[in-house]
Amino acid sequence: MNFLSDNVWGAWPEMFSAIEVAAGGPQLSYGEDEISARVEARFCEVFERRLRVFPVISGTAANALGLATLMPGHGVAFCREGSHIAVDECGATEFYTQGARLMTLPGRDGKLSPNEISAALAHFQRGLVHHLQPAAISITQASEVGTVYSQAEVSGIAELARANGLKLHMDGARIANALAHLNCTPAEATWKAGVDVLSFGATKGGALGAEAVVFFDPDDVGDFEYRRKRAGHLASKMRFVSAQLEAYLAEDRWLARAKRANACARRLAEGIARANGAELAHPVQSNAVLVRLPDKMVARLRAEGARFYDWEPSSSGRTLVRLVTSFATPEEDIARLVALASNGSV
Amino acid sequence: MNFLSDNVWGAWPEMFSAIEVAAGGPQLSYGEDEISARVEARFCEVFERRLRVFPVISGTAANALGLATLMPGHGVAFCREGSHIAVDECGATEFYTQGARLMTLPGRDGKLSPNEISAALAHFQRGLVHHLQPAAISITQASEVGTVYSQAEVSGIAELARANGLKLHMDGARIANALAHLNCTPAEATWKAGVDVLSFGATKGGALGAEAVVFFDPDDVGDFEYRRKRAGHLASKMRFVSAQLEAYLAEDRWLARAKRANACARRLAEGIARANGAELAHPVQSNAVLVRLPDKMVARLRAEGARFYDWEPSSSGRTLVRLVTSFATPEEDIARLVALASNGSV
Amino acid sequence: MNFLSDNVWGAWPEMFSAIEVAAGGPQLSYGEDEISARVEARFCEVFERRLRVFPVISGTAANALGLATLMPGHGVAFCREGSHIAVDECGATEFYTQGARLMTLPGRDGKLSPNEISAALAHFQRGLVHHLQPAAISITQASEVGTVYSQAEVSGIAELARANGLKLHMDGARIANALAHLNCTPAEATWKAGVDVLSFGATKGGALGAEAVVFFDPDDVGDFEYRRKRAGHLASKMRFVSAQLEAYLAEDRWLARAKRANACARRLAEGIARANGAELAHPVQSNAVLVRLPDKMVARLRAEGARFYDWEPSSSGRTLVRLVTSFATPEEDIARLVALASNGSV
Amino acid sequence: MNFLSDNVWGAWPEMFSAIEVAAGGPQLSYGEDEISARVEARFCEVFERRLRVFPVISGTAANALGLATLMPGHGVAFCREGSHIAVDECGATEFYTQGARLMTLPGRDGKLSPNEISAALAHFQRGLVHHLQPAAISITQASEVGTVYSQAEVSGIAELARANGLKLHMDGARIANALAHLNCTPAEATWKAGVDVLSFGATKGGALGAEAVVFFDPDDVGDFEYRRKRAGHLASKMRFVSAQLEAYLAEDRWLARAKRANACARRLAEGIARANGAELAHPVQSNAVLVRLPDKMVARLRAEGARFYDWEPSSSGRTLVRLVTSFATPEEDIARLVALASNGSV
Repeated sequence: MNFLSDNVWGAWPEMFSAIEVAAGGPQLSYGEDEISARVEARFCEVFERRLRVFPVISGTAANALGLATLMPGHGVAFCREGSHIAVDECGATEFYTQGARLMTLPGRDGKLSPNEISAALAHFQRGLVHHLQPAAISITQASEVGTVYSQAEVSGIAELARANGLKLHMDGARIANALAHLNCTPAEATWKAGVDVLSFGATKGGALGAEAVVFFDPDDVGDFEYRRKRAGHLASKMRFVSAQLEAYLAEDRWLARAKRANACARRLAEGIARANGAELAHPVQSNAVLVRLPDKMVARLRAEGARFYDWEPSSSGRTLVRLVTSFATPEEDIARLVALASNGSV
Repeated sequence: MNFLSDNVWGAWPEMFSAIEVAAGGPQLSYGEDEISARVEARFCEVFERRLRVFPVISGTAANALGLATLMPGHGVAFCREGSHIAVDECGATEFYTQGARLMTLPGRDGKLSPNEISAALAHFQRGLVHHLQPAAISITQASEVGTVYSQAEVSGIAELARANGLKLHMDGARIANALAHLNCTPAEATWKAGVDVLSFGATKGGALGAEAVVFFDPDDVGDFEYRRKRAGHLASKMRFVSAQLEAYLAEDRWLARAKRANACARRLAEGIARANGAELAHPVQSNAVLVRLPDKMVARLRAEGARFYDWEPSSSGRTLVRLVTSFATPEEDIARLVALASNGSV
Repeated sequence: MNFLSDNVWGAWPEMFSAIEVAAGGPQLSYGEDEISARVEARFCEVFERRLRVFPVISGTAANALGLATLMPGHGVAFCREGSHIAVDECGATEFYTQGARLMTLPGRDGKLSPNEISAALAHFQRGLVHHLQPAAISITQASEVGTVYSQAEVSGIAELARANGLKLHMDGARIANALAHLNCTPAEATWKAGVDVLSFGATKGGALGAEAVVFFDPDDVGDFEYRRKRAGHLASKMRFVSAQLEAYLAEDRWLARAKRANACARRLAEGIARANGAELAHPVQSNAVLVRLPDKMVARLRAEGARFYDWEPSSSGRTLVRLVTSFATPEEDIARLVALASNGSV
Repeated sequence: MNFLSDNVWGAWPEMFSAIEVAAGGPQLSYGEDEISARVEARFCEVFERRLRVFPVISGTAANALGLATLMPGHGVAFCREGSHIAVDECGATEFYTQGARLMTLPGRDGKLSPNEISAALAHFQRGLVHHLQPAAISITQASEVGTVYSQAEVSGIAELARANGLKLHMDGARIANALAHLNCTPAEATWKAGVDVLSFGATKGGALGAEAVVFFDPDDVGDFEYRRKRAGHLASKMRFVSAQLEAYLAEDRWLARAKRANACARRLAEGIARANGAELAHPVQSNAVLVRLPDKMVARLRAEGARFYDWEPSSSGRTLVRLVTSFATPEEDIARLVALASNGSV
């Protein structure tokens, strides 16, 4: 019963076939291969526009390299308290930008809103050389607590961004789960809503290790390719990263499997919410369930072999925990966890 | 007939099986998995000592992160003219060190020697705050031109390093090819000869994308793990990188396949050296052949489909080209290239 | 009537004599001169211990270089919301540390307290590679709002720092004003209370441009001197910076003049506090007065020629403004401002 | 007899008067003062065009901040072997650029020429992501060995720069000495010859500590002001730096005093060249004399109290030494050194 994260699971069978096929015969290295070319074309198709896409192997690299391309060292990027770039990447964005600042803001259900950003903007006088200068907004889709920005919410933030000369970055480590929840196209969820740069995640969705930085406006690419190279993120056998992205996007499998993960989370949420003393902390819109459970229940679940992270320290006898499902979470694990929570035994 | 580089080839069949096996069941992410633990143990075994090993996915990352851990921003690392870190990594080491300097030095057959380093050391006054401070030496094994440092050569450089308080880094992108040439153990070729940190390459030898930074002295690790994380080089599904390293080292396959690649290079060198106007530029000790060929022959070979890089611009009617073989170079490609070079036709 | 800042004023007459004297005859450059040597000795005397001191020319440089020497790129420094390093130095500390983070915390009267820092520490798991690692605490003495940490307050923070392996940095741009308020020696106010590194300010107190980084423990100096040089902060004619520091510390003038500035502030505060609708926001313990004034009064004062900064935007008809006095603020300016505030005319 | 450098001397009397005058009354800090405004106007006048000028306090800061504004981290700047930025600034340019590379090239009489730069350019393939990208050329005027680029020489390099998309930076720590030698206006020697950015030095010429970065094309300024602030190089009492620059440029004193220093050097050179075994290494065109002297003479001069630096280690019984004169070098010191060299006694 592993609900620690979606990245504790292996990878789709299709991933293995794809990279085996990719292995056949020599190919130019460093992304000059045919598969990488096909991947860019496929991204244009999926997102319905001319764009530039650059595979990397980690979400941290995607986020930090993407943001560093968009903002100078004296820039500020606004993001939600608890966002991955702010708390789980050991300052990668600060490192790559040569010391830009992430300003974390509160917001309902793990999401930013224009109000908080507007308020924060007031702290920085534009053009005043003593002040860091607002440069970007980064939102996580689906969010760290499993909620999903609606198109309207993204558009609202994007409008504020444009009005203030800020770039809008989307950390899409779980973009598939968000899309599986939203009733819209990938294009509508991203650039049509005003997103400039997307960290497109495939690893959590079922790849071995494949992410991509997507610049919807090719003019934003700037010196990204040199940055990626200098960072050691231009893989020599890039074909194998690209092959994963190709398999991921093929036949809309990425969305189908994300739907499955989301459904697991919903089922888990519904089941566990019925348990005595349990309370969902946020709407369950993707593949994460944030739920407050009595400490005794938490201990019991762990004793029975369930694995998951505390999201906050225990308080008043209850702990907020995070349960993450994936393309591979066994149905029986969900049933068992729900049963354990509800009955106190199985 | 692809002789551009060893990284144009795919990967061993064993790599695919290994990662498929690795996919089974949940595992802790970010290198806390069982396979990664086994890999460290295996490295200790292979190198016959307690050491620390950290997988990354590119040789550039291995070199730059390793060197950045060993030297401050005001440091100088000495390396050979034409070394990969100096000319083919877009300044990754300078980036990661926050502006340390690589000082490139001449040397016979693509290798550094204590003489050149000693001469270079004289340019820097120790402790003078206006001067960058010598901090490290980096050697490439096997070298960029296919030669191999003998144990004595490495020891000679290491002695100089120790006497001057410098760390010795080895870029082992092709360490397997070097070992396949040397008549010594991995330990003898590295730490017993005085190497402090090794960039252990597996990708060029047949992995999909797997390298490792090996600190022979655990005290040298310092803040490496934070550096790797901040750089986005701590893969979430690290198991798949580690699985490649495990497969690579299993049953000494890495050395066997490197021997095969070296043998291909030797055969290619012997064959092509007999062609009219051809002249080997360096001893062929690993899997690269540096050979001067008449420009007409170069054009003819390319017209027949051979692919390889010019290593220097044409001069006096001849061009120095580099031919690289690998675990996968077809025998017939070698035979065909030799025939084309020798007969002018096939 | 200029109350914008203490750095709008010129410099003491003694500064000019001191640098003229310093100009006599050749001296070694880059801090190897005799005056610089005397300055270090004088600092040891003033602070009653063996220490190391390094002049620089700006407080921003002192803070950022000092902190960068104490903490790695993956470090976090805790500081008060509104602290100079966080809001007025355009991210200098982040730049010099290659992307460390400043975490701003609330606290009464512009000061940090152990409680807030303890709470903040809980956000970072020590040794977890995904998390930035707490490394330092920085406090401003006197604070940005004119309050002063008591010895006990500094000790309390220092204890927490030591218990958590953090270094304690003091931004002493106005350390003289703080000392003039405290009834203790420079030693008691700093290293005896647990401060590791002090940005010693003289510019605001009356120098032309002279600050110093003071390492109370010589072991903390590390590579500071290389950092300063690489940053372009090692002045070639350092004698002229050192001469200012020498004049500053001579005959305890620095404290006498700071007392004068503090007295001006106190008088100003007492006078203005009696005006209708005026309310002091914090105890006036150094040379800054933070006071809420009716917006109409603010407008009137400015119309009459008074210059000062709004500290917060207007709210409910009143604005928090900051009034700063200095060694040179004319008595009549204070009297006039008080009269203008009180009577509505003069 | 101090010939170590021009920065061992104090400062002009006019500097002290200027800063005393500057001290009168409050002024806006951080360069918003009236004197700084006048200085920019004066620079425009002196250089006969609209330009932007930013005072800093060290030549290292001027060079590194100027270059960092012109080139990205993946850039290469070409400079002469032995140039100050390459050997005497502890890697400041590498630090500020986040790891750009300085490529040092040979050249006659301490100067670069288009030939060497053209040859060096061939090492970098434009647009190839693995290669650092040529971005700038930096020349020192007057050079480190006392020679001066003619207008034609600067133009030649500038043409090459423009043709290759490179920016041309001039390290003018001794620009006054160069102008005093050249028969042309400041404009002709700089932007009319193709210089983009100038590090304008005043410290070596007689200021206390005042340099300036001059952007001849305001479009090149980019984010310079944020870079300067983040670096701690925006002095709070900037008026005192600007006052020095104003005094420096007033009544063409800078050129008159540089002429005097140059004349001293010429006299010194002529005198010493007549000594037995002495040989001038380069034409003496500014205020430095590079001369090979018999080791015995070197020892004797030092024994008699002369101070100067060895420029190269002793070789074949002679040592190349550097003798620098300044606005303040006493006539009798020159006469005495010449006499000592010539007669072996005085």
